[in-house]
Amino acid sequence: MPQKETSYIQSRRSLLADKFASVRKQTLKLVEPLKTEDFVVQPIVDVSPPKWHLAHTTWFFEAFVLEKYSKGYQIYDADFGFMFNSYYEAVGERVLRPNRGFMTRPTIEEVLKYREYVDSQIDAFFISQGEVNPDILDVIEIGLNHEQQHQELMVTDIKYILGHNPLFPSYKLNSGVLVESTFDKQFLEIDEGLYEIGHDGAGFCYDNELGRHKVYLHQFAIANGLVTNGEYLEFIEAGGYQQFQWWFSEAWDWIQNNEIKAPHYWHQIEGKWFNYTLAGLLKLDDSAPVTHVSQYEADAYARWKGFRLPTEFEWEVACEIYSPKTAKTANFVDAENYHPVSPIENNMQFFGDCWEWTNSAYLPYPYFKTADGALGEYNGKFMINQMVLRGGSCATPSDHIRRTYRNFFHPNLRWQFTGIRLAKYL
Amino acid sequence: MPQKETSYIQSRRSLLADKFASVRKQTLKLVEPLKTEDFVVQPIVDVSPPKWHLAHTTWFFEAFVLEKYSKGYQIYDADFGFMFNSYYEAVGERVLRPNRGFMTRPTIEEVLKYREYVDSQIDAFFISQGEVNPDILDVIEIGLNHEQQHQELMVTDIKYILGHNPLFPSYKLNSGVLVESTFDKQFLEIDEGLYEIGHDGAGFCYDNELGRHKVYLHQFAIANGLVTNGEYLEFIEAGGYQQFQWWFSEAWDWIQNNEIKAPHYWHQIEGKWFNYTLAGLLKLDDSAPVTHVSQYEADAYARWKGFRLPTEFEWEVACEIYSPKTAKTANFVDAENYHPVSPIENNMQFFGDCWEWTNSAYLPYPYFKTADGALGEYNGKFMINQMVLRGGSCATPSDHIRRTYRNFFHPNLRWQFTGIRLAKYL
Amino acid sequence: MPQKETSYIQSRRSLLADKFASVRKQTLKLVEPLKTEDFVVQPIVDVSPPKWHLAHTTWFFEAFVLEKYSKGYQIYDADFGFMFNSYYEAVGERVLRPNRGFMTRPTIEEVLKYREYVDSQIDAFFISQGEVNPDILDVIEIGLNHEQQHQELMVTDIKYILGHNPLFPSYKLNSGVLVESTFDKQFLEIDEGLYEIGHDGAGFCYDNELGRHKVYLHQFAIANGLVTNGEYLEFIEAGGYQQFQWWFSEAWDWIQNNEIKAPHYWHQIEGKWFNYTLAGLLKLDDSAPVTHVSQYEADAYARWKGFRLPTEFEWEVACEIYSPKTAKTANFVDAENYHPVSPIENNMQFFGDCWEWTNSAYLPYPYFKTADGALGEYNGKFMINQMVLRGGSCATPSDHIRRTYRNFFHPNLRWQFTGIRLAKYL
Amino acid sequence: MPQKETSYIQSRRSLLADKFASVRKQTLKLVEPLKTEDFVVQPIVDVSPPKWHLAHTTWFFEAFVLEKYSKGYQIYDADFGFMFNSYYEAVGERVLRPNRGFMTRPTIEEVLKYREYVDSQIDAFFISQGEVNPDILDVIEIGLNHEQQHQELMVTDIKYILGHNPLFPSYKLNSGVLVESTFDKQFLEIDEGLYEIGHDGAGFCYDNELGRHKVYLHQFAIANGLVTNGEYLEFIEAGGYQQFQWWFSEAWDWIQNNEIKAPHYWHQIEGKWFNYTLAGLLKLDDSAPVTHVSQYEADAYARWKGFRLPTEFEWEVACEIYSPKTAKTANFVDAENYHPVSPIENNMQFFGDCWEWTNSAYLPYPYFKTADGALGEYNGKFMINQMVLRGGSCATPSDHIRRTYRNFFHPNLRWQFTGIRLAKYL
Repeated sequence: MPQKETSYIQSRRSLLADKFASVRKQTLKLVEPLKTEDFVVQPIVDVSPPKWHLAHTTWFFEAFVLEKYSKGYQIYDADFGFMFNSYYEAVGERVLRPNRGFMTRPTIEEVLKYREYVDSQIDAFFISQGEVNPDILDVIEIGLNHEQQHQELMVTDIKYILGHNPLFPSYKLNSGVLVESTFDKQFLEIDEGLYEIGHDGAGFCYDNELGRHKVYLHQFAIANGLVTNGEYLEFIEAGGYQQFQWWFSEAWDWIQNNEIKAPHYWHQIEGKWFNYTLAGLLKLDDSAPVTHVSQYEADAYARWKGFRLPTEFEWEVACEIYSPKTAKTANFVDAENYHPVSPIENNMQFFGDCWEWTNSAYLPYPYFKTADGALGEYNGKFMINQMVLRGGSCATPSDHIRRTYRNFFHPNLRWQFTGIRLAKYL
Repeated sequence: MPQKETSYIQSRRSLLADKFASVRKQTLKLVEPLKTEDFVVQPIVDVSPPKWHLAHTTWFFEAFVLEKYSKGYQIYDADFGFMFNSYYEAVGERVLRPNRGFMTRPTIEEVLKYREYVDSQIDAFFISQGEVNPDILDVIEIGLNHEQQHQELMVTDIKYILGHNPLFPSYKLNSGVLVESTFDKQFLEIDEGLYEIGHDGAGFCYDNELGRHKVYLHQFAIANGLVTNGEYLEFIEAGGYQQFQWWFSEAWDWIQNNEIKAPHYWHQIEGKWFNYTLAGLLKLDDSAPVTHVSQYEADAYARWKGFRLPTEFEWEVACEIYSPKTAKTANFVDAENYHPVSPIENNMQFFGDCWEWTNSAYLPYPYFKTADGALGEYNGKFMINQMVLRGGSCATPSDHIRRTYRNFFHPNLRWQFTGIRLAKYL
Repeated sequence: MPQKETSYIQSRRSLLADKFASVRKQTLKLVEPLKTEDFVVQPIVDVSPPKWHLAHTTWFFEAFVLEKYSKGYQIYDADFGFMFNSYYEAVGERVLRPNRGFMTRPTIEEVLKYREYVDSQIDAFFISQGEVNPDILDVIEIGLNHEQQHQELMVTDIKYILGHNPLFPSYKLNSGVLVESTFDKQFLEIDEGLYEIGHDGAGFCYDNELGRHKVYLHQFAIANGLVTNGEYLEFIEAGGYQQFQWWFSEAWDWIQNNEIKAPHYWHQIEGKWFNYTLAGLLKLDDSAPVTHVSQYEADAYARWKGFRLPTEFEWEVACEIYSPKTAKTANFVDAENYHPVSPIENNMQFFGDCWEWTNSAYLPYPYFKTADGALGEYNGKFMINQMVLRGGSCATPSDHIRRTYRNFFHPNLRWQFTGIRLAKYL
Repeated sequence: MPQKETSYIQSRRSLLADKFASVRKQTLKLVEPLKTEDFVVQPIVDVSPPKWHLAHTTWFFEAFVLEKYSKGYQIYDADFGFMFNSYYEAVGERVLRPNRGFMTRPTIEEVLKYREYVDSQIDAFFISQGEVNPDILDVIEIGLNHEQQHQELMVTDIKYILGHNPLFPSYKLNSGVLVESTFDKQFLEIDEGLYEIGHDGAGFCYDNELGRHKVYLHQFAIANGLVTNGEYLEFIEAGGYQQFQWWFSEAWDWIQNNEIKAPHYWHQIEGKWFNYTLAGLLKLDDSAPVTHVSQYEADAYARWKGFRLPTEFEWEVACEIYSPKTAKTANFVDAENYHPVSPIENNMQFFGDCWEWTNSAYLPYPYFKTADGALGEYNGKFMINQMVLRGGSCATPSDHIRRTYRNFFHPNLRWQFTGIRLAKYL
């Protein structure tokens, strides 16, 4: 019996070693197109410097794996804990988020050395022949999922940095390719009844996806794909941003105060619409999903169109019934498609492309429990005033998304690849 | 057949006439203890001047009943629409909320004349022998419920105005009387299963309580009463406000930035705790429900104690099973008990006392539809970033509360009589 | 010898007793037209509630005369010191300025009782036969000048409160009377040379006017009167507010950020210009001096016109040479002329009407010394980042102005009656 | 006659060519110690990224010399005008100052190419044999003085960027060397009388130094050197920052709101004082001039010590009488002494070291006229709410300072090398 257990753990160790190598490498691949200067700045509080992402994801392994489990581990630089902690109160003081973008040192060169140092220490652990504490494997797995989340944030943060530069530099010239679409839009129907929601615990998931539990849904229909730029443009041209009746009260204040008149990255130049993509400033692609919209805009569009946003439960149930995830039809960051485009087969657009705003607030599932210690701060402490998004985006790694995944953001935020799926009662 | 209908309408007209008289009178009764100066100011954006409440509730009847349905109606003063509209975008421009407290004119004397004028016009309608458009009755009923909501706001706004004056003047000397409590605290158990939620439409309710629908609940237990000052004090003394692990991330920022160390209106003077009540500054009553806490504090307290806040569905189901509403045990504003106190019989504390924070976000029920026109702005446009409260408070009129009533506020707000009920899974 | 001194002091005591009676009475006369509600609010931080002025000027006599010099004096209410101290750090904690407008208690009735109490105590001192400490007379004299300053502030604060009410109520219907003007505008020339500046110490003056000292002036010319509304309108119509070249850098930011397009209280209604006066909203009087302009606007206008603002030294020298002060030609508050108008004789407009912005920063004169104790905080601590104004306004009491008087405000402030005099080098 | 003129111009052209080469080279020398990352950020609005300084000083020559006077000049990149204009409204739209630090492109490598391109074009002009428009020489001379100002700003901005990094990296290890001081402090006396002030126009000066004119000074004495760290420490230890009586009213608010307790860059670690210098974090040098103080602190210190700050006129007259400028005794940036230290001979400390706060507001001299066009925006539009500083600092190029030089900053700013000289009346 203990032997069997050991072999399971060894096999898991081996799988994680491979994943560790590939995830860490992928992070570096994503910053290859950058200039040194691009690594440093933080134009708004939500956007972190790419250098910070590289260091922070490394610090995660140092603080939660090496310092805790590796005897005699020599900390690389005691100041880095202070500089690259994000929000773990349990781990001590930290540089306040708005000041991340003023730290020109350590340089990116030094940060890369820090990554190499920590990688070699973790590799040493994988190679070692000694017994394995399964807790370590759990933390490494979380660390890799954490790094994949930061890969996504890094892509959107890079987009923000480059997309707000007056020169509109591109990240990769081929990253916003237009794709001919044969997509047939329709509504999928779901019967009233009791359904099961949430992760069953097989394979990795976050604490906020547990546990599998019953919900009662009323009969509804949900679109098989996302609202496109062309459809959203009709809302703009119909005066949607000037008509209070489509907007939440605080959304109306928000569009007034911030002079919001279109999705983020849209520019009207001499009467024509362009949008900034990671391939530079391009003519608006009518058939691509509209993206970089707030939940406010998603909700207003849906109301104007006579529909509504789905709840996260409706999304998950519809997805389970209609759309086994297939990477082929989705636009994930590791497919090097850095812009949401229309799917080209299967006629179902549930994964990749855009994070889809739901009308569900981010709240705990029944029996939700936070983990002990600093890792308990991962999800639970954000369960107020945020809305759930589902499905993953073109900036999400393809092996980092699943049907039960719950992303969450404040409803006014637009720097992620966020989009709109419509629903209605029947 | 039409005769029968007419007689139903006539009876409803007659009932509404009585209610109109009593509600309008009660509003004036509530401001009797005030000095002229107290009617004018707005110390924070959430607190409106009592004068404004008196005029705004009157304007509601003028704008939605008289202007719309009363032929040849002579508007009292065209400027008042601009000055006393609250947030109805459909009705035109309005004085921005933060500027309500700078309008010294019209004087309170003039506002009372305005009330008399509109009252006499509405009375004329009640007395008239002509046929009745049932729509008018609907709008008057909404107007009276609207005025009762403002009665509650007015009481809490008066408390804020007087309670932040360095002289700590009282509103009514007998309004915070201590009551000997024989309350026996216990947890009420509810089985897992499908339950029905929401108003069935008989009698008045707001659009956000409709319609009656199924929800699935997991087995849980819920307290039969509210957390007391004495119990909350233990949390303070145990260092709860200094320990990040009990707090949402944004709550932790909020208590740091605002130096929150206790419920609102609590003052520590030479080591002893007092709280400002509408009877003035009194020694803290350990047995009374803790009140003027934010949802952040309610949630943190529950976590510290090893419990959680109930969802609004759990609250409603538990209330239906265990607590037929009885005014006798509750502390409502029309009982002239302006402070939440312990109940003295029945051993169930569900109504009056304090609005109870739930862990449910304020979201639409299935099939929710907003009304057409300005009245459609009443509830739906606030369904984002607010949390639901249930049960009514000592500032709520006793005939303005019911099991299905959904109040909602931002989780950081504390100027209402808000309190804490605990729950847990079994 | 001591007898002579005594008789001088007795005569001074007698004169001060008269002045005390008349100044205190004048303060009350100024608030006669107000409604109770008008006494309470503080729409912007610079504007204090009239009730506060009434109490604060009274507190000044209580704190600096009665508490200090009157044995056994019974403080009227210990909380009032906290509530009605303005900025004297030496006297203890105080209600922060932005919160003055939320204190509905004490009521105006109670404040008037407080005035009566303190007045009677000061009167008792005047009537007593005992020896007099000359220090007391000095402090009373300062207190009366202080109260006259507050009379002026109170008039402009009342104007702000009423003038920002959507009903535009008038203060006094006859307070903005048009006067036929026969004023002959011209430039007065002054030769280069050494001049003397400052008060010589005979009669009351503030510490900041002392001592009389030499300055060297270059040859210049200065207007004998103020820029009129009609002249200023030309600047507006020529696009002055849209042309950066006339503005200080920070002034340009200020007009952009605050959307400043005309003097304060000007309203363009259907193409025609009106301005709010204490007689209500009136058609713009082209011949009256332009008022409620910032130093930024005064400076920009002067530059656009090819002139400049005078220094405070040029103003004082020109005034000494050309304009013996005569109340007859000026518009002072005690002449019940609450609006600046054209002078009707003498052809010199140096006093009353408007405070005239100079291009002198408010700095100490040579050998300037602050008084000991709290009264030393009167002037000296404001000698940074403010500009000097000269001449008094229609809200200044006529016996509270003199050639050497130095008023000072931040250059962006407009709620005082401020105006423009032009100068140039020759 | 024309020949003579030509030879004067040719000689001036030749001198300017040399200066152009040396100034442009010195700018690059100053950034040699930086890492690429250091070039990018703007931690506070006052601090510009070093990359921006390099580009902006280059753009100045492109916009005001090449575009205007060089026929057929090919603009390097049309976007650069928008990105690297600082505040010249006349030249078109510009990136708002707070956003300078988010522009990661063009990279520093591209900016250096831009410098090379513009330098080669200006060199071409110097080499050409054609006739010379003297206006061009004037603008180039302004451009070089402008670049020297930016050299100084760049040094202090670099200090800010590195000095606020948690790692406290040094700029140059030898840049804050302690120097043994034999300085003998004393007060220099000046008689009452008429003096001449301002530049006489021989050699370069800014418009704000013109023209030479009379001022009347009262008898005074002025220190021959600056207040030291050791002396200032006495003020801190005596509780100066806790005693309101030394502070301007707005200064008192400023130290409260910003929790100011010592000069900028001072750090108290385990009871001992350190300060960050361009050589890193060093033990406080008691004998060096105190620096990085606001005018508020300079004024408060002087009052506490029983003295006052000099006026700019007193400074200039004292300097003319007592201190012929000698680079030997001063600490200028081109002497590679990046920290103010005690002078070692001559016993007069008027130049270099620190900019010395005066108690003079920055106002125009008599007959001041701004130049036409964009260059007229250089000085005049800042003549409000700023205070004059004299003498130059250790970050000022030694050939960029003179007795009549008027620097100016808002009184709260501390990121320049600012210091304190005492004065008194006799």
